[in-house]
Amino acid sequence: MAEAVRHDKTARQLRLLSDALDSGRLGPVRRLVNTLSPAEIGNLLESLPPAKRTVVWGLVDAEDDGEVLVHVGDDVRESLLAEMDPDEIVAAVEDLDIDDLADLVEDLPDTVIDEVLKSMDRENRERLEQVLSYDEDTAGRLMNPDVVTVRADTTVDVVLRYLRLRGELPEHTDHLYVVSRRHQYLGRIALQALLTHEANTPINQLVDDEQPAIGVEESADEVARQFSDHDWISAPVVDDNNILLGRITIDDVVDIIRNQAEHQALGAAGLDEDEDLFSPVPRAWRRRIVWLGINLGTAFLASSVVGQFQGTIDHIVALAVLMPIVAGMGGNAGTQVLALMVRGLALGQVGASNVQTLLWKELRVAAMNGVALGSVVGLATWAWFRDPMLALVIGAAMTLNLLFAASAGVLVPLTLKRMNLDPALAGGVILTTVTDVMGFLAFLGLATIILLG
Amino acid sequence: MAEAVRHDKTARQLRLLSDALDSGRLGPVRRLVNTLSPAEIGNLLESLPPAKRTVVWGLVDAEDDGEVLVHVGDDVRESLLAEMDPDEIVAAVEDLDIDDLADLVEDLPDTVIDEVLKSMDRENRERLEQVLSYDEDTAGRLMNPDVVTVRADTTVDVVLRYLRLRGELPEHTDHLYVVSRRHQYLGRIALQALLTHEANTPINQLVDDEQPAIGVEESADEVARQFSDHDWISAPVVDDNNILLGRITIDDVVDIIRNQAEHQALGAAGLDEDEDLFSPVPRAWRRRIVWLGINLGTAFLASSVVGQFQGTIDHIVALAVLMPIVAGMGGNAGTQVLALMVRGLALGQVGASNVQTLLWKELRVAAMNGVALGSVVGLATWAWFRDPMLALVIGAAMTLNLLFAASAGVLVPLTLKRMNLDPALAGGVILTTVTDVMGFLAFLGLATIILLG
Repeated sequence: MAEAVRHDKTARQLRLLSDALDSGRLGPVRRLVNTLSPAEIGNLLESLPPAKRTVVWGLVDAEDDGEVLVHVGDDVRESLLAEMDPDEIVAAVEDLDIDDLADLVEDLPDTVIDEVLKSMDRENRERLEQVLSYDEDTAGRLMNPDVVTVRADTTVDVVLRYLRLRGELPEHTDHLYVVSRRHQYLGRIALQALLTHEANTPINQLVDDEQPAIGVEESADEVARQFSDHDWISAPVVDDNNILLGRITIDDVVDIIRNQAEHQALGAAGLDEDEDLFSPVPRAWRRRIVWLGINLGTAFLASSVVGQFQGTIDHIVALAVLMPIVAGMGGNAGTQVLALMVRGLALGQVGASNVQTLLWKELRVAAMNGVALGSVVGLATWAWFRDPMLALVIGAAMTLNLLFAASAGVLVPLTLKRMNLDPALAGGVILTTVTDVMGFLAFLGLATIILLG
Repeated sequence: MAEAVRHDKTARQLRLLSDALDSGRLGPVRRLVNTLSPAEIGNLLESLPPAKRTVVWGLVDAEDDGEVLVHVGDDVRESLLAEMDPDEIVAAVEDLDIDDLADLVEDLPDTVIDEVLKSMDRENRERLEQVLSYDEDTAGRLMNPDVVTVRADTTVDVVLRYLRLRGELPEHTDHLYVVSRRHQYLGRIALQALLTHEANTPINQLVDDEQPAIGVEESADEVARQFSDHDWISAPVVDDNNILLGRITIDDVVDIIRNQAEHQALGAAGLDEDEDLFSPVPRAWRRRIVWLGINLGTAFLASSVVGQFQGTIDHIVALAVLMPIVAGMGGNAGTQVLALMVRGLALGQVGASNVQTLLWKELRVAAMNGVALGSVVGLATWAWFRDPMLALVIGAAMTLNLLFAASAGVLVPLTLKRMNLDPALAGGVILTTVTDVMGFLAFLGLATIILLG
């Protein structure tokens, strides 16, 4: 089952490491840590409380420091950088790929950035500055300028000789790019094609010019979509004049996809996907209090609705007992619709062309839920309070609130999106405000009219 | 901003397509659809209501049918298969890769499966049967048996001649695998290495034997973790005797990562990640009513707590107005902790070794929230109801409930995990039950003791 998410290896490493740390013998810890890949070390550091994290970070081989920094979230990265001298940081990051360095550089102290730039040769410095000139979360920022290009008017044999002369290729090179004299992107050649064709085959017979290049200003999400849609391992990045600027590889795309998804899951709880499991208490508190404060405001709004019906509750105290059910069930049902909508919006599957159909579908589902859940709630209320009219009121109020919930579940995320706000962040708070307010209003309002009328 | 998830291209295609469909002229629709990649067509079909989906599906080129079926969720796949004759299905799927076919085959009618098996040659049929013999969501089910192997006791030149003779390589081949006479996995050679080394270089100088192979029974999640940790494009799959069985490629891993993440986001609302945006109303209803029914049960549980305090509420009706605030804020704060824990568990970052530290951190954050939010709620209550003792009661109850919420946020997902239940699915329901029950109990209980005592 996909649900039984087991990461036995990580958990085992963590336990071993924890035992070794507790015993105070750092030799075994060092040996254990340095058998791991940088990504594994990053994952391990994220799962350690600050004190142990500092100890383990000090034991990581200096040559892995840079790659580890690339593989941890922003919060943890900051805590690791805080433990390093400027010299150590410069040594750690100077050998990173340009795209990884660009990702790190804004988290570094200004003095360190100057040192890093000074330690680079002119070509790499210019490349880094070019990458940094693009907005965060665009293709330009994700690309690595280090690409292997060839001309179309040559043969497999010549290219093979060139590659042998050149030596190692950049990581994840699965295609060479064919460019014009002016460095315009013309197409790509699979390494596979070079290996499976005779030496005298003209290169222009092997060029695939059907795959689109990525525009340097396209958003990271659009980049991820294209990689998924075309099953790419790498893709060329071009500017408006079709000049080849660099190359994006699947490893960066996997990070984008993971972040998008974490964003929906954590965003719904008002959290950032870079949140550190062990962030210092004052910082964790500052981040959470904002979202909780907003929720408190909406809770008072819902309470003020209840406040309007104090006279009614004073007459029938059972209403106070039952009202959380009406409001809560609306919230639950609305959250289901919201979750589907947020995913649909993120995948570009929901828009003006199908919102009516969706709303109509969700209203029908809500009506069926209303009949089923309204009946159950009504019967349970009848049995509990021996009052058929109260049962009728709660059943009707529940059905009404489920209809409100379905409408809000469809319309709130769409409206937020149209206002350029993030449905994954603000959707839940607004939705539950609607379902609380409308739930209390429907239930207590109907009770006032029917039971006290 | 990562938040501004824009998929302009998909949305534009959808609008164009929708307009063309509404105009009833199917020629333009057909042309539009068949400029898209199978994944894009799949995405488009998922965003169409059933009637339009049927029309568009009928216009897709028959040769793309199989790939499109691979790229849609289970629900949509079922609706598309329902539109096809057995012959059409056989024609659509018979050219798929073994791993894709294995993924599809269980959704096919039995008669069709027989036909498909009959249409395959013996080698491919045996390969499919082998893949199907492994459990779903294991490496064995994800692998493609089509791999290119070489011996270690040869040279680059010989391998290049072999590859030219062989012709096309399987998709996403970035390494050849070196095997023994008994087909045991010995290591891998990068295509890059073949291209950048002289023809007379012995193969055994190029073999990378440091990368671990994937065990055929490892879970899909473990496979995804290893791909992330090692930045793999493809990886070999071996059995217990280290015999090479096949190869897993990054495109399947991207699907796993996407599913894991959707599972957390949709699972929290009691939904399955394969849920179709436009699933038929009766089916959508049947799926949702179960989760809502469970939530209704827990809502009655919380209400029964309120029911114990009807006498108290009868005396002080303001309690009914304020009690949803105490319960609701506990739910919000607990949900934040839960979301962090569910992600941490999915990444293997949370376990017995750090739960104490985490709980202590979250209790301190909750205490700070309690002081801040408790004061605000207390002051607001004082201003609203002019009752300092009521203000004190709600402030204290709020603080208590935030502490309960933090404890439940840490302990509920861990306990579920230890019971082999999925924290992403059941965590939210149990957490809000705890925060509702404890919130009502703390607030109404303190009120009874202090205000009526």
